[in-house]
Amino acid sequence: MSNDPAHFCKTILAGTIAKGLQAEVNDGLAKLRKTPHLLGILANDDPAAKVYADWTGKTAKDNGFEYSLRTVGKDDAEETIIAANNDDGVDGIIVYYPIFNNRQDQYLQQIVDLKKDVEGLSHQYIFNMYQNIRFLDDRQMQKSILPCTPLAVIKILEYLHIYNTILPYGNRLFGRTICVVNRSEVVGRPLAALLANDGACVYSVDVTGVQQFTRGEGIRKRKHEIVEKEGWTVENCAPMCDVVITGVPGNKYKFPLHLVKDGAVCINFSSEKNFAPEVKERASIYVPAIGKVTITVLLRNLLRIVQNREALSPESQPTANGES
Amino acid sequence: MSNDPAHFCKTILAGTIAKGLQAEVNDGLAKLRKTPHLLGILANDDPAAKVYADWTGKTAKDNGFEYSLRTVGKDDAEETIIAANNDDGVDGIIVYYPIFNNRQDQYLQQIVDLKKDVEGLSHQYIFNMYQNIRFLDDRQMQKSILPCTPLAVIKILEYLHIYNTILPYGNRLFGRTICVVNRSEVVGRPLAALLANDGACVYSVDVTGVQQFTRGEGIRKRKHEIVEKEGWTVENCAPMCDVVITGVPGNKYKFPLHLVKDGAVCINFSSEKNFAPEVKERASIYVPAIGKVTITVLLRNLLRIVQNREALSPESQPTANGES
Repeated sequence: MSNDPAHFCKTILAGTIAKGLQAEVNDGLAKLRKTPHLLGILANDDPAAKVYADWTGKTAKDNGFEYSLRTVGKDDAEETIIAANNDDGVDGIIVYYPIFNNRQDQYLQQIVDLKKDVEGLSHQYIFNMYQNIRFLDDRQMQKSILPCTPLAVIKILEYLHIYNTILPYGNRLFGRTICVVNRSEVVGRPLAALLANDGACVYSVDVTGVQQFTRGEGIRKRKHEIVEKEGWTVENCAPMCDVVITGVPGNKYKFPLHLVKDGAVCINFSSEKNFAPEVKERASIYVPAIGKVTITVLLRNLLRIVQNREALSPESQPTANGES
Repeated sequence: MSNDPAHFCKTILAGTIAKGLQAEVNDGLAKLRKTPHLLGILANDDPAAKVYADWTGKTAKDNGFEYSLRTVGKDDAEETIIAANNDDGVDGIIVYYPIFNNRQDQYLQQIVDLKKDVEGLSHQYIFNMYQNIRFLDDRQMQKSILPCTPLAVIKILEYLHIYNTILPYGNRLFGRTICVVNRSEVVGRPLAALLANDGACVYSVDVTGVQQFTRGEGIRKRKHEIVEKEGWTVENCAPMCDVVITGVPGNKYKFPLHLVKDGAVCINFSSEKNFAPEVKERASIYVPAIGKVTITVLLRNLLRIVQNREALSPESQPTANGES
């Protein structure tokens, strides 16, 4: 038996997890009448945004989707989105943010047609996510779209069997205690809400403090509620957690390893490494990065949007009564 | 959505769990050269023992095994076991205890031939269980036999996905915290040891106190070690536990429900109901009894014993180096 102290931690790479999702996407794609076309809109001269746009394009094409990139100036982004909304040749739209890096970006996000919003950033999708409404229509034919990074984390937790399929759909995290370090509107807060809506007890941690997201004792409530944990820090909650998920930007932050419960599952969605390598001496499973899953989830959202459109018929209208 | 407070607890009956194991046993049985013959030895005039003996017989026959029952006086038990050891027509022996209800019963348990001991009570099997040695031979062809009730609980935890198959075999409970209420030599202590050997942190509770069984931080140790938790009671450990397993005899005992962690998995192996029905208001999964799984595990042990014999060849000798 190895004396390596990290011997019992299983490190799982995003590429491995993405494979199963890719197969699912490829199966769905094969059943469609035409190849979906994803349009990328780049109105940002940051070279990193260009790299990400090219990577999206390559992954889309490698998986059998059509992809094109429109590069425009900041002030043309709005008209470009409107034109893409009206272009029957475009099935999904991804806009590479930040563009203005202020509230104008949120305005642009709401311009993208709901039926082409592969990133799940439209208000209707965000509302459904927080309200735990899983369908757009009463007949439950059209699934609501979830934002890519939080959904990628969920797909990773499914792959790792943290979701228990013995429990009914929608309650499969009941009994799990999860720490999410980051409460941004883009990833951390939606992720905490999604996990709590699936039955987990979630501690959402940021520099301002700790919030607990749960559906209440016995998960009797239909959607999560939030309790401010006055005076708590990560020290109070992390040692109780089966799963620790980090997404702190910048290369200075490291999650304090002595707070990782023995045998916990550790997942990092930051582009930086929020866990020191010694995390493997305590964790049972470590997922160091999630990018490849996120991009596969983007393609899955595109597929879903096309499937939703095909399921659409005149009598089905968006509603707020999804799961209940 | 239902207002029933127990709406989100999934009650799972032993019969449901036993089905998958029965299918596995039936598959194995179909591959054998001859039908294994289980001999029951009843030297006990308690009517309950007769009922259990008849039930074993019925289940064995229903699953395609041969079964016969030899009813003898207490003082003939020893000679009856020795005769069965030497009878090539007998593949497995089950003795219905108690007979003398004292240490003489342990003497009788050691008389049963290792190669016919379907109950896993022989010293060699018990030694292997505590030492986390999983095979009888260096070539790892012959699996060691585990006692039926603890093994039944393990099979239930596998069915419930508490064992995480993403982790390597032997470590699949790493990260789980489990409370076992009962520390008898027959079930509670072996069960705590087995769970800890598979990577869990186990709190073993009885009237004398609480012991923690683990393979140490990062499950670096080859087998479990025991730490006495001075001054602890069930109040200290149960609220941290993902799984609570009870086996307290007598109809007076009820597990204190306020100690059940929200979303915990609750399993009772006592013949009495150790959990009040309100457990369903807190648990995610409740298994009220395990008898049908235990008896299927007995047949699985019989099958394994016959398979072990078939795997036996002159160069394979029992050894203490099983898994390492």
